[in-house]
Amino acid sequence: MIEEGDRVILVGSKREYYLRAGPGKFGSDAGEIQLAGLVGKMPGDRIETHLGKPFTIRVPRPPDLFCHGKRSGAPMLPKDIGMVIAYTGMNRKDSVLDAGTGSGVAAIYFGGIAQQVDTYEIRPEFARLAEKNIADAHLDNVTVHADDVLSAEGSYDIVHLDMMIQKEHVAHAWSLLVPGGFFVTYTPFFEQTFSVIDACNELFSGGVNCFECMERELTRTVRGTRPSTRVAHSGFLTIARK
Amino acid sequence: MIEEGDRVILVGSKREYYLRAGPGKFGSDAGEIQLAGLVGKMPGDRIETHLGKPFTIRVPRPPDLFCHGKRSGAPMLPKDIGMVIAYTGMNRKDSVLDAGTGSGVAAIYFGGIAQQVDTYEIRPEFARLAEKNIADAHLDNVTVHADDVLSAEGSYDIVHLDMMIQKEHVAHAWSLLVPGGFFVTYTPFFEQTFSVIDACNELFSGGVNCFECMERELTRTVRGTRPSTRVAHSGFLTIARK
Amino acid sequence: MIEEGDRVILVGSKREYYLRAGPGKFGSDAGEIQLAGLVGKMPGDRIETHLGKPFTIRVPRPPDLFCHGKRSGAPMLPKDIGMVIAYTGMNRKDSVLDAGTGSGVAAIYFGGIAQQVDTYEIRPEFARLAEKNIADAHLDNVTVHADDVLSAEGSYDIVHLDMMIQKEHVAHAWSLLVPGGFFVTYTPFFEQTFSVIDACNELFSGGVNCFECMERELTRTVRGTRPSTRVAHSGFLTIARK
Amino acid sequence: MIEEGDRVILVGSKREYYLRAGPGKFGSDAGEIQLAGLVGKMPGDRIETHLGKPFTIRVPRPPDLFCHGKRSGAPMLPKDIGMVIAYTGMNRKDSVLDAGTGSGVAAIYFGGIAQQVDTYEIRPEFARLAEKNIADAHLDNVTVHADDVLSAEGSYDIVHLDMMIQKEHVAHAWSLLVPGGFFVTYTPFFEQTFSVIDACNELFSGGVNCFECMERELTRTVRGTRPSTRVAHSGFLTIARK
Repeated sequence: MIEEGDRVILVGSKREYYLRAGPGKFGSDAGEIQLAGLVGKMPGDRIETHLGKPFTIRVPRPPDLFCHGKRSGAPMLPKDIGMVIAYTGMNRKDSVLDAGTGSGVAAIYFGGIAQQVDTYEIRPEFARLAEKNIADAHLDNVTVHADDVLSAEGSYDIVHLDMMIQKEHVAHAWSLLVPGGFFVTYTPFFEQTFSVIDACNELFSGGVNCFECMERELTRTVRGTRPSTRVAHSGFLTIARK
Repeated sequence: MIEEGDRVILVGSKREYYLRAGPGKFGSDAGEIQLAGLVGKMPGDRIETHLGKPFTIRVPRPPDLFCHGKRSGAPMLPKDIGMVIAYTGMNRKDSVLDAGTGSGVAAIYFGGIAQQVDTYEIRPEFARLAEKNIADAHLDNVTVHADDVLSAEGSYDIVHLDMMIQKEHVAHAWSLLVPGGFFVTYTPFFEQTFSVIDACNELFSGGVNCFECMERELTRTVRGTRPSTRVAHSGFLTIARK
Repeated sequence: MIEEGDRVILVGSKREYYLRAGPGKFGSDAGEIQLAGLVGKMPGDRIETHLGKPFTIRVPRPPDLFCHGKRSGAPMLPKDIGMVIAYTGMNRKDSVLDAGTGSGVAAIYFGGIAQQVDTYEIRPEFARLAEKNIADAHLDNVTVHADDVLSAEGSYDIVHLDMMIQKEHVAHAWSLLVPGGFFVTYTPFFEQTFSVIDACNELFSGGVNCFECMERELTRTVRGTRPSTRVAHSGFLTIARK
Repeated sequence: MIEEGDRVILVGSKREYYLRAGPGKFGSDAGEIQLAGLVGKMPGDRIETHLGKPFTIRVPRPPDLFCHGKRSGAPMLPKDIGMVIAYTGMNRKDSVLDAGTGSGVAAIYFGGIAQQVDTYEIRPEFARLAEKNIADAHLDNVTVHADDVLSAEGSYDIVHLDMMIQKEHVAHAWSLLVPGGFFVTYTPFFEQTFSVIDACNELFSGGVNCFECMERELTRTVRGTRPSTRVAHSGFLTIARK
């Protein structure tokens, strides 16, 4: 049931809107909706504007937060977050250390899966933004640290870095991992990818692999079906096991 | 702590072995190990053969089960399982319906994340195999049904099919999904992919997308770094939202 | 030596211009150039504007005509034209039949290689445009036919179609080819590609293959090197041998 | 008409054979053929074994020489040779310098198109092999030099190198090119590709681009159509213009 302050998506015939249940109203060319009227509703319920136009109520899932949450720079794409989850086998028993939080997209995905997530973001304004997005996702197992990840302590099953990576980050990640744990980095350029691979090869005995996931969409219209011509490269994932 | 009957991976200097703690012994050219000696050990502990060769003890994670579990035909690859998880935003609150269990690889990944997974496999011998693999993964929230997925009932956040898909499967999936829930299919051939897209477009109002994830590994040796020349195609993922 | 009426490219420090030697003048923010002054010059010579800014004179090669020639719709990309040339082994002894001339890009490439090219374009305005581009390329072995390719007669080593293809086009191509000759089609959508493959499999005994060439550029800047994110799909090449 | 000593391909119902018209006989499980009987035949003619099994006579084209010619290591693939031809716009007016001849595959393709080709191969045994393959292709405009390409002199429209490339090779190529001419290199590894790009950027004012051509085959069987899972990477093509 939707409560006061909850994030809600209103899905209309052509558009969807990312709103918050509670005070105020929302207006579009389809008419106005009092946002207090969303409180107490269930996902899938309909609500009408003062002009009688219906919207369906959706409770946000991680892909919605990826699409609608406030951003800071380019977040990791779902395809790459999925690779991190799959290649590490992330699951509910895991403690995850994440750094380069940005707007918190990866941390939100991880927080919905792992037992506990610590995410480090050295830029205070991004850390604050991520905290808001994570609160909107109702995740109380994700802690944002507005700090350098090198100050992180403890023991983790998975360490994931989406940031500029120095050799000392690789060594620090290694020291925090349990035996059999995974270190994963996301790096857009070849040069940094190569230096991460080299640093991992020195420390990680359980294997080091590096993948690129090239995603292509199939577009199917009345003219025919074809691969569409969208973005083909985002970054490389290096996966090292302790 | 490792208990009697648990699956364990012994990691040696060049190879790893997928074993079970308990009665019996394991022999390789490095010597013999009494498997009862694994009980009570912790991940990361070492154990020596009668020749004094050390092995490190690893508790299996989902990627280990993908590598070492018994198989029935070609399982979904981690890259594609990761796409399913990421594009649906699968998380601990979700009920998941899975069908075309095979050896249970996808069900094991999903079971480590979701609250509850029902997986349907119409071939009894595959269902039994999957049950064993799932038991080895210590997942008590995954139920294997040796039955036709069309007999499934209830309400699900995500329905995932890796099997030959007819139009009735699409309609059935739609009927079981909560509002905002996701239907995902994995299909290796274009023809079936196209017919799934068409069937989804008739029923699912929340959008239908189809992706292919082409994974390439970067290989880095003393000769230099290059994309390696491994498998480039597995199947297409069609993702439809209710 | 450049003659009156020849196409010329003037290469400046940041831009290049596609011009014609002869009457008139060309003006840019770098100043004016009398185009008659280009007559008698050699490729690589420099010419200065009235403000003393130098431009280098280049005689167009096929890639220049691809970049600068007047277009009609989307021409085939060089990567795909290169695949046609390589998979057929097009050479100076070949007679080539081309159809779906468009602005003549493929015909210009083929005309620079083959002994003789007949190119068919059913839309008269495109045929006229192609004739102009071909004349600018100084190719007297390429004949543009403003006609249906089904009216073509004679004997060819290679038949290349970049147009909507019916089964009768496949049969007609087969009938015009010498033994061992190649039929190549370029089709952007899967559906047409599949029907071309099927029609070829019925007639062509020398093998039928279908390829897609996914071209990626490597971008190298001071920030680092990465695959760039440009167009990944254009069309499929089906290559059938008689 | 086929003459004594000419290379010929005999195409049977399931296999093809690369032979030479003249003395001797050829035997397969379909029976024997006297090779002198091929002299005077035309492409497309049939010849029968002593058991009455028919073969069709094909005169080799460059793709046949790629498939059947004797090799030395891994030759450039047609897709990459096609990219060289297309991005340079290679045509009958061109003088081409090629190095890293290997078995002569690229030189044979270029020789069928350009006015004249000089190809340098520093390993004498490869140079001899290439000379034989080139003779079989009836190309009298291709000269094999069993020498270091740094000793090449003259003026060329295109310089193509498929070999280990040092900075001095880039400078030497630049010095031999006409204005507007193209320098193209084929390099399998990233490291060398990057150093070639950097060396080209210092010298070539007409632009430097680097491409990878990822070729995928579509496989169409009664089970359905899918991208096949063959080789995805060969090398990078760097294209620099003077």
